[in-house]
Amino acid sequence: MQIGVVSHDFKLLAPAKRKTKPEEKLEGVLSRIISGIEEACQTAGIPISALGGIGIGAPGAVDPVKGIVLEAVNLRWDNVPLADILTKKLKVKTILDNDVNVAIYGENRLGAGKNSAHLLGVWVGTGIGGGLIIDGRLYYGPCMTAGEIGHTILYPNQPLGNRTVENSCSRTSIVDRLVRLIKANKKSRITAEVGDDYDKIKSRTLARYYRGGEKEDRLVIEVIDAAADDLGVAISNAVTLLSLTRVVLGGGLTEALGAPFVQRVENSARNLAFPESCRKVNVVASQLEDNAGVFGAAMIAMERLAQGVRR
Amino acid sequence: MQIGVVSHDFKLLAPAKRKTKPEEKLEGVLSRIISGIEEACQTAGIPISALGGIGIGAPGAVDPVKGIVLEAVNLRWDNVPLADILTKKLKVKTILDNDVNVAIYGENRLGAGKNSAHLLGVWVGTGIGGGLIIDGRLYYGPCMTAGEIGHTILYPNQPLGNRTVENSCSRTSIVDRLVRLIKANKKSRITAEVGDDYDKIKSRTLARYYRGGEKEDRLVIEVIDAAADDLGVAISNAVTLLSLTRVVLGGGLTEALGAPFVQRVENSARNLAFPESCRKVNVVASQLEDNAGVFGAAMIAMERLAQGVRR
Repeated sequence: MQIGVVSHDFKLLAPAKRKTKPEEKLEGVLSRIISGIEEACQTAGIPISALGGIGIGAPGAVDPVKGIVLEAVNLRWDNVPLADILTKKLKVKTILDNDVNVAIYGENRLGAGKNSAHLLGVWVGTGIGGGLIIDGRLYYGPCMTAGEIGHTILYPNQPLGNRTVENSCSRTSIVDRLVRLIKANKKSRITAEVGDDYDKIKSRTLARYYRGGEKEDRLVIEVIDAAADDLGVAISNAVTLLSLTRVVLGGGLTEALGAPFVQRVENSARNLAFPESCRKVNVVASQLEDNAGVFGAAMIAMERLAQGVRR
Repeated sequence: MQIGVVSHDFKLLAPAKRKTKPEEKLEGVLSRIISGIEEACQTAGIPISALGGIGIGAPGAVDPVKGIVLEAVNLRWDNVPLADILTKKLKVKTILDNDVNVAIYGENRLGAGKNSAHLLGVWVGTGIGGGLIIDGRLYYGPCMTAGEIGHTILYPNQPLGNRTVENSCSRTSIVDRLVRLIKANKKSRITAEVGDDYDKIKSRTLARYYRGGEKEDRLVIEVIDAAADDLGVAISNAVTLLSLTRVVLGGGLTEALGAPFVQRVENSARNLAFPESCRKVNVVASQLEDNAGVFGAAMIAMERLAQGVRR
């Protein structure tokens, strides 16, 4: 959960984060969120009662207008009215949005997407999330779920499980492919580090063996570059459809791999975008990195509450 | 060229169309446009001087704000300030947009996309054009070229010329594939009609041999269904990215093939859209068909001029 708290005069106060675990159930997650809010208030030196608003970025499908977590697979939640629950419990107006949306909003207001009225954000980690800014505002679309670039189809002829952008470009899929190749006797320096405990391969591990890392390894570079090229294809399609000039890449894998990865994605996207004018698209790394979400959540709360609306 | 003329009190008058030929050069095309405007005025029973505005839908890349045809391959035009030329020549304010955009705008205001604040339009003919309505207005994007779904990548691993949606789903590509299969000795009833003069295969020809046609033919059905399935993949990606509930299909091939084609595209798009809520997307046929563009051009002129702005 990304938690941002806002003062009574709608100024941004300290942010906080809380990991959420599925085994905790609703009450457990709520008390972790509240402890995060308390921590943020302590940092800011004010009591909860003095807050003007709270912004929460939650994982999964969210209805930001109604303030409901529609479906969060990781939390095993269905239709949880999180904004109302917290508003009642804490007597502070609470605004809810999806955790990737709040991160992209943070980048759009304070980071790498500043001053971009139109912006696509793609967050690459264990999965792939995305969000869209159109005309200076988060765009939700009629079904409220816009931005899900990770679930778009990249290889129509592949079987289920191998078709989507997430199936090709997430950290999970990169590690799967790498492990498959190692098991098929392809040589990689990474085996010296992890042995056959492939769960040890995290984003930071991959970064050490990727281009620019301490232990550059040909197989790791090959597998990650293929994923970056594929991600560039998906991004080029969004750029062509929406005529975009700027895309922000974030998430744990992007942060770990850094500039060589972002550059590779940009090259692929530029190669394929249409028309010529769209081939100048800038694909840039998140500037706020791990803090994009908490700042974005607070900014959303601040701006929406200042306007006297939920959305 | 799609031509719509508007009265002084911003009412829609009669529309007109003029085919444009590359060999005519600028002056020739202009005089054909003007003859179209004269015809529309005659139908409406008023002189050109009594017009409140003119709306033009031009083929190719258009800057609707500046009123410039940036690049029209079919006309061999580069940077032609068509709106200014006509405004000066006729002393009537002229609004310019892309011909697919005006058609989609027509459907959005008067046809199959009525009352949809968010709408994707896909026009299937010799090529594939597209346009987007977002928040009730035509969406152009920072590079002004949004909607080009025909140029998005469908098969990343295919060579240049076989990768895009247009390469798989346009009438041109459907006929190419059909002819290749016939030349490879696949049997089709269509050969009895066209012999080896494959230029005779127009949209209406295909329709006679497609599902629901008088002379249903297995090969024609197979080739068109594969294209419809592919088009559904591209549409599902736009639906997933933009969380859309409605898509309008238009263009000469869609009009000729009708409901069985539109249904096939809808099935494919519904199968692949994400999340569940987006799988209810409606893919519907253009209602205004060949008149969508002229009505849309007039509506754009009417609404923009009434607001006192170009855009």
